[in-house]
Amino acid sequence: MIGCVLVANRGEIAVRVVRTCAELGIRTVVAHSSADRDSAAVRLADDSVQIGPGPAKDSYLSIPAVIEAARAKGADAIHPGYGFLSENPDFAEVCEAEGLTFIGPPAKVMTQLGDKSSARAIMSGAGLPLLPGSRDPLEADAAEALAAEIGFPVIVKAVAGGGGRGMSVVRSAAEFPRAWARTRAAAQAVFGDGRLYVERYLESARHVEIQVFADQHGDVAQLGARDCSLQRRHQKLVEESPAPMLPEDLIREMGEAAVRGARAAGYVGAGTFEFLVDPRAARFYFMEVNCRLQVEHPVTEAVAGLDLVREQIRIAAGEPLGYTEVLPRGVAIECRINAEDPAREFAPAPGVLEVCHLPAGPFTRVDTHVYPGYRVPPWYDSLLAKLIVWAPDRDAAIARMRRALGEVEVRGPGVATTAEFLSDVLDHPRFRAAEHDTTFIESL
Amino acid sequence: MIGCVLVANRGEIAVRVVRTCAELGIRTVVAHSSADRDSAAVRLADDSVQIGPGPAKDSYLSIPAVIEAARAKGADAIHPGYGFLSENPDFAEVCEAEGLTFIGPPAKVMTQLGDKSSARAIMSGAGLPLLPGSRDPLEADAAEALAAEIGFPVIVKAVAGGGGRGMSVVRSAAEFPRAWARTRAAAQAVFGDGRLYVERYLESARHVEIQVFADQHGDVAQLGARDCSLQRRHQKLVEESPAPMLPEDLIREMGEAAVRGARAAGYVGAGTFEFLVDPRAARFYFMEVNCRLQVEHPVTEAVAGLDLVREQIRIAAGEPLGYTEVLPRGVAIECRINAEDPAREFAPAPGVLEVCHLPAGPFTRVDTHVYPGYRVPPWYDSLLAKLIVWAPDRDAAIARMRRALGEVEVRGPGVATTAEFLSDVLDHPRFRAAEHDTTFIESL
Repeated sequence: MIGCVLVANRGEIAVRVVRTCAELGIRTVVAHSSADRDSAAVRLADDSVQIGPGPAKDSYLSIPAVIEAARAKGADAIHPGYGFLSENPDFAEVCEAEGLTFIGPPAKVMTQLGDKSSARAIMSGAGLPLLPGSRDPLEADAAEALAAEIGFPVIVKAVAGGGGRGMSVVRSAAEFPRAWARTRAAAQAVFGDGRLYVERYLESARHVEIQVFADQHGDVAQLGARDCSLQRRHQKLVEESPAPMLPEDLIREMGEAAVRGARAAGYVGAGTFEFLVDPRAARFYFMEVNCRLQVEHPVTEAVAGLDLVREQIRIAAGEPLGYTEVLPRGVAIECRINAEDPAREFAPAPGVLEVCHLPAGPFTRVDTHVYPGYRVPPWYDSLLAKLIVWAPDRDAAIARMRRALGEVEVRGPGVATTAEFLSDVLDHPRFRAAEHDTTFIESL
Repeated sequence: MIGCVLVANRGEIAVRVVRTCAELGIRTVVAHSSADRDSAAVRLADDSVQIGPGPAKDSYLSIPAVIEAARAKGADAIHPGYGFLSENPDFAEVCEAEGLTFIGPPAKVMTQLGDKSSARAIMSGAGLPLLPGSRDPLEADAAEALAAEIGFPVIVKAVAGGGGRGMSVVRSAAEFPRAWARTRAAAQAVFGDGRLYVERYLESARHVEIQVFADQHGDVAQLGARDCSLQRRHQKLVEESPAPMLPEDLIREMGEAAVRGARAAGYVGAGTFEFLVDPRAARFYFMEVNCRLQVEHPVTEAVAGLDLVREQIRIAAGEPLGYTEVLPRGVAIECRINAEDPAREFAPAPGVLEVCHLPAGPFTRVDTHVYPGYRVPPWYDSLLAKLIVWAPDRDAAIARMRRALGEVEVRGPGVATTAEFLSDVLDHPRFRAAEHDTTFIESL
């Protein structure tokens, strides 16, 4: 039994977690930085505690500060949200050592899957197809030789990378040495780990991921696929479920592969298996496992009719899953409304939201922490709100999302958002026909 | 094809209609009173037109003003919402004569079903069970004799009544003459029609209604049941779908009866068959047909996965229905957040909403026209917002609704709401066990 959850995150996901806890009769304490003291999560939670100043390294990323807050407030569990400490095995380990329930996979599983090369080894062993390439970190010479063998273009990736950072596409042998050196330096700087590997790069691919849940008793369920191909610089902007215009057999095989992979890894909790799909060849390739709730989890919720945070908490409390799959209904799409200016290369455009009208209506959900008068702090990402719609079919879902995006009215000095840009993207014939791929947004 | 809809209503339902039209690519013009010139519907619509001053009789109830607005703006269809002119056959007839598509049933059908006594005759002919009583308006003497024959308690109802007005429960022969005279005077004053009839009054009954849709080609579908038993003075406060704790056979029979009744009446459009249900005897009795969209339609939308306004518009445009029933999923509950003070006999408590936080989150929908700083006008009903939640089962839906009600924060000088009261009602053991009836709220 979990009686009190410390929410170790901010923004919309902190609000999201507080809501589900309230429905489960679980007390919530929001751990927040000084910049977030007037946040919606603080207002909605039962209690709150300031854990440090604005910069995340001194608050949301500080393991001692978070653990101390949990102890001081008598929390018996911690929900890490996404980002920040959510995929940090050291944090999960400290929680375990302190007798706090970490609402996520075991530290050991996170360690194994967080390392790309060990993750690839486990998944290959479970029969999941991998892109041709190295499984292990390479030296520059060996990497260059392997790239020539695979054939260009290849992608160079940091072993410790994630969230679209620490990767470079290399299109010829001539560019390889400089690309390698640049990516290594970046990976060292960002992740403190300069190890790299190489694999084939698919020119026209979809990013399709499978949501899985595994309980502590060995049961694993898959909740269907999400297409997250609309990305800019590897950052997802639009996500949908189910994945459109792919053969049913392929989706089923991916679901089965994800379940096999979760079993092989001894997975517990919510996880996402990310695959690259070559739609023409109807083939898929394992990329990585995300050991946390995803930003885009609401599209799965809408289609599956399940509250995924509730499922996370139930599993963390030791309850059995009770199902291995769910009957999906209709189509859900999510758009990320970021405080970014599409006219200026998506530069962050924060400020005070003097006007802030967000959409509502049938089958329209807005997950947000902002409100009229809210000042977007400079310290964190630029996500203002997630807009999620559901409809019986994809055309109706696109129409609903465009209607909802049209209702977004967020203004303030220096503030810009991605709402109008995304509405144009959804209206594009290639997206309407589901002929988009991961390069689509950058090709516009 | 419908190209432009005049929305002849206000408040949340005007916003609701504008949204669906936007998704269908239909232009909208909101016809509003001077009191509603800054309304959310006006802001969200493509265009707007002022049709008169605050009092409804000079604006929302003025047929010439509404028709003139439609003509001036080039609308080719009118959506009447609920209340106001929505069930006025004269209005529907004028629309037809003016070549405007009235988004509702044909005038002739509304006339027949709006008259309780002709409605009862049609439904009895279609085999729908009626409560023992007169089908036709009675004189006082005949009514008193019939009441004695049926057995007390009886209910005296205005032929032209509706919305919970124009009815009295009479518990003994001694009270009959005065109750009759009082109800007749009230009916004359409110509806301009003092005709009354008498029927048996069920002491412990549920109010259960079936949503039907009929197209112009003779196809009729039923979209399941709603329980609207939580009422105060015959005004619904909480509605849910499906109707809980009733035998499946009974619900199925009610659905079939509603479809038979709609066919017998030559129904076209969205309609609601209201039944009184005696849960112990597992019997149901036809009450009336509402020839419009109901306030509580979103619970059916959530469970059926359909946009009912879209269905109304499709039918009005001559499209075929395309289904006769839908596969329901889960449980939906709606709470009406009214600006009323439960501590003062639910007296209207309007004013300026200085603070106005409304809920959101997974499977949580808020249909509203209010916003921070909104001044509730004195001219109309006290509905501030409809809160609708969905969950896989009834317990989870109740928990979700109580969480959502807990987020409601609406404050201003003199302003009170029903949110906290409704949260207590939903937590009551009798409601949790679905042992409530239509007298439950008044018995608290």
